Amino acid sequence: MAVIMSELKVLIEASARHVHVTREHLEALFGDGAALENVRDLSQPGEFLSDKKLRIEGPRGAIDRVSILGPVRPATQAEVSMTDARVLGVTPFLRESGDVAGSAPLKITGPAGSVDLAEGCIVAKRHVHLTPEVARKHGLENKQLISVKIDGERGVTFHEVVCRVSEKFSPAVHIDYDEANAVMLTGEVYGTVV
Amino acid sequence: MAVIMSELKVLIEASARHVHVTREHLEALFGDGAALENVRDLSQPGEFLSDKKLRIEGPRGAIDRVSILGPVRPATQAEVSMTDARVLGVTPFLRESGDVAGSAPLKITGPAGSVDLAEGCIVAKRHVHLTPEVARKHGLENKQLISVKIDGERGVTFHEVVCRVSEKFSPAVHIDYDEANAVMLTGEVYGTVV
Repeated sequence: MAVIMSELKVLIEASARHVHVTREHLEALFGDGAALENVRDLSQPGEFLSDKKLRIEGPRGAIDRVSILGPVRPATQAEVSMTDARVLGVTPFLRESGDVAGSAPLKITGPAGSVDLAEGCIVAKRHVHLTPEVARKHGLENKQLISVKIDGERGVTFHEVVCRVSEKFSPAVHIDYDEANAVMLTGEVYGTVV
Repeated sequence: MAVIMSELKVLIEASARHVHVTREHLEALFGDGAALENVRDLSQPGEFLSDKKLRIEGPRGAIDRVSILGPVRPATQAEVSMTDARVLGVTPFLRESGDVAGSAPLKITGPAGSVDLAEGCIVAKRHVHLTPEVARKHGLENKQLISVKIDGERGVTFHEVVCRVSEKFSPAVHIDYDEANAVMLTGEVYGTVV
């Protein structure tokens, strides 16, 4: 018997370049006792835009005022676009967030000091956050690769979208600014899993 | 009777930001008698990368060393990416090349002078150049909108790709750098019309 799954539409969100830091690096960059203050909640519960910005620097160039997202994490990483990687002069490693082993080195600088990361600069693999309930309803599994179609004057279907399923998530597809520009994303847009 | 069309694979080319100029503007920017010298042929017969570069400037920022493509044209226009449009602070009008009526104003500057364009700055609509022979073989028509799939770690299907059919063309899909980054284009890649 063929099962007709109901259509799944998910909010598309563009992630600007950002950095996640360990507590140790946060203090090295911003001074002893520095903390990430919540400026704005992000779509994923618990995640927030912090009040802290830093400079990221590669062999060719630097980008200033890059936001740190909170809370602090077990590993420091910078997520940049391919456009940024070219400006910085770093190799663009396409990775899932957290998978930084062997990725590009980067220097990060705050008002209290700099940290030379031996690895940690990645280009984020596009992904979709799903709750177990939504995933189950639509027959999707954690780590599964799916395609998401976005209509419009510059319509695109993104393939190789990694499903990430957790009770902690809120349904949203995350793409970077190159990808958002490729589909001319503006305002609140939903994509369809195809 | 169903007709099975053979699969059409087309070379994908990323277009960097560039400018086309009229003879009058070329002389205003580079001096009387200035000419565009051919540095490198482009894929489309007759089109070439010239030896001339200029500065483009919007209300928010400027970009230096933007290449002029030859030969001279009946109208001056700048084709930039969405990323560039944000840097320049201009409204990104998604247009086919040549369709500049009512598009964004821009200042362009060469060693001999500047020109304030009342319109002419566009973001190029993705398109595919086809010969009449190839178009006929695959049932495609001038102005038709098609979809082109590009495989890979960051695979994408671009929809709304405008077919442009001319005896003067060589088959190639043209996308900008935002789009090329979204699909992580490197080297000689072919897309499939789907």
